[in-house]
Amino acid sequence: MNSEQDLINYLKRFKTYDKKIITGIGDDCSIIKFSSNKKYVFTTDTSLLGPHFSKDYSPEEIGYKTLATNISDIASMGCTPLYAMYALTLPKMSEAWIQKFFKGTKRLLDKYKISIIGGDTTKGPLSVTIQLIGVQNKKILTRGGAKLGDDIYVTGTIGGARAALISKKQTEAYKYFRKYLVRPQPRVQIGLELSRFANSCIDVSDGLAKDLKNISIASKKGFEIHIDLIPTCPKFNNFVSDKKKEECLLGGGEDYELCFTANKKYTNNINNISKLSKTKITKIGTITHSKYKFYENKKLYTVKTRGYDHFQCK
Amino acid sequence: MNSEQDLINYLKRFKTYDKKIITGIGDDCSIIKFSSNKKYVFTTDTSLLGPHFSKDYSPEEIGYKTLATNISDIASMGCTPLYAMYALTLPKMSEAWIQKFFKGTKRLLDKYKISIIGGDTTKGPLSVTIQLIGVQNKKILTRGGAKLGDDIYVTGTIGGARAALISKKQTEAYKYFRKYLVRPQPRVQIGLELSRFANSCIDVSDGLAKDLKNISIASKKGFEIHIDLIPTCPKFNNFVSDKKKEECLLGGGEDYELCFTANKKYTNNINNISKLSKTKITKIGTITHSKYKFYENKKLYTVKTRGYDHFQCK
Repeated sequence: MNSEQDLINYLKRFKTYDKKIITGIGDDCSIIKFSSNKKYVFTTDTSLLGPHFSKDYSPEEIGYKTLATNISDIASMGCTPLYAMYALTLPKMSEAWIQKFFKGTKRLLDKYKISIIGGDTTKGPLSVTIQLIGVQNKKILTRGGAKLGDDIYVTGTIGGARAALISKKQTEAYKYFRKYLVRPQPRVQIGLELSRFANSCIDVSDGLAKDLKNISIASKKGFEIHIDLIPTCPKFNNFVSDKKKEECLLGGGEDYELCFTANKKYTNNINNISKLSKTKITKIGTITHSKYKFYENKKLYTVKTRGYDHFQCK
Repeated sequence: MNSEQDLINYLKRFKTYDKKIITGIGDDCSIIKFSSNKKYVFTTDTSLLGPHFSKDYSPEEIGYKTLATNISDIASMGCTPLYAMYALTLPKMSEAWIQKFFKGTKRLLDKYKISIIGGDTTKGPLSVTIQLIGVQNKKILTRGGAKLGDDIYVTGTIGGARAALISKKQTEAYKYFRKYLVRPQPRVQIGLELSRFANSCIDVSDGLAKDLKNISIASKKGFEIHIDLIPTCPKFNNFVSDKKKEECLLGGGEDYELCFTANKKYTNNINNISKLSKTKITKIGTITHSKYKFYENKKLYTVKTRGYDHFQCK
């Protein structure tokens, strides 16, 4: 057992005892059918100083980002976030810190009408575990639904978060990219619209190459990606050296954009979603029979970077 | 903001956006009415090295206890545990450790037919956050339902866990009491039976005095407790000095027994539950109009100990 995936595979062998469980462990969320007409989705994520936020994050920023990344998991399922539970481990009970933390949290609670329904506090090294529950809109989007010939899209721009991570603090580059790392925008509205059209969806949290691989494994398909079509933020090319571009675009990055696949017949619908949400949605490739192929300017391209794994990467 | 209760009170002022929320933050579990005929209960708890387990716990024991304490929260609501989500922070991905941890976990998963539906792993100082979801049986028991004149009961015995905590490791006393601390028995079956009779219930996790106070605050009532009626394990009096008895019986203790209140007319039913479950259920007092009164051999007794709070006690 060397990776998160190994642990997931180990736990998948455990017995499930309940017929209401539609999808158990292994996707962005699990799915439970509580009532005859509505399915609910469940996700949990722990954020720690180090892997998830650094000392230059303000408490508001920690409050915002820890919830935003959980909301992103619900968005990637095409669902509406509803309820949050907070398990906070804090070095001390500082009223000022807690109020700032929840100020950042509250911006998202109010924007998406999410209710905090419970929690737990413990004394120890700072750690934030949030559990979020959402409800289905139309289809629930999973990693496993991609169909042969589907177009592959991403929302927004890719690579900004990783560009911040590899830039030295205090540099102009870091200042420019920091917002992509610290204030990701969960794509809830787009996910809800996509629940009528998309066949599969994932949020880009471990690096686009790894997240695409997760779609292809779950869907038992392959893909072709055109790296030069991957949309980047305006100053990406100014600040990121050619040597580092692949790492930012395909490697471990916390962009929290949606990567989804849809039948070609929905091209117009997807363009409309882009217009209405005022968010770029870009076609970057196609679902194929098998194999992962990357192209750059129509030439086959060999990817060197690996996606993020808490137990394999630094 | 100096305590967990202050934080709970702060979060209670946040808006809730959903009519399905029957009880939000503040009880052992929150309650959501997902379908017209069934309510579900949600709880989360973080366990850390230090406050929740010590270095002499084996991985199996950590796996067992971290789940047992969450199940106890569901039991105290008179509900059936169904689904668990695991957020594990581990110093390294050790296959041996993980398999032992889940061996301890699995004893309870199998006993209570609980399914793991999801989770998250992160690299960092050992921390286990479990979120557990349960479903109602008959009435959902809360802290807030105690009625004037209700009898107050506890299941099993009280004080063993605290007696272990204050005993020096390697002593005969520690070896004797250790099972009460490390292997608490969640009272699921008794909780389910009580859901037909009890008016209020809590699990004894922060110390009996504090947990009783929580019932009385939520129910807007008082109580009278006869300390000499509180049931203890067989060798309690041999090993615990008179000076330490109050701390073990009323102070911060992780007994995970149920403390509940019920109308006198159910005395026989409760005795039957005790017989069928082969578990002692003992009347220790009465719900009164207001005020907290403790008696020892019918004389008024002043309690010195405080209950457990992560941010106030060591």
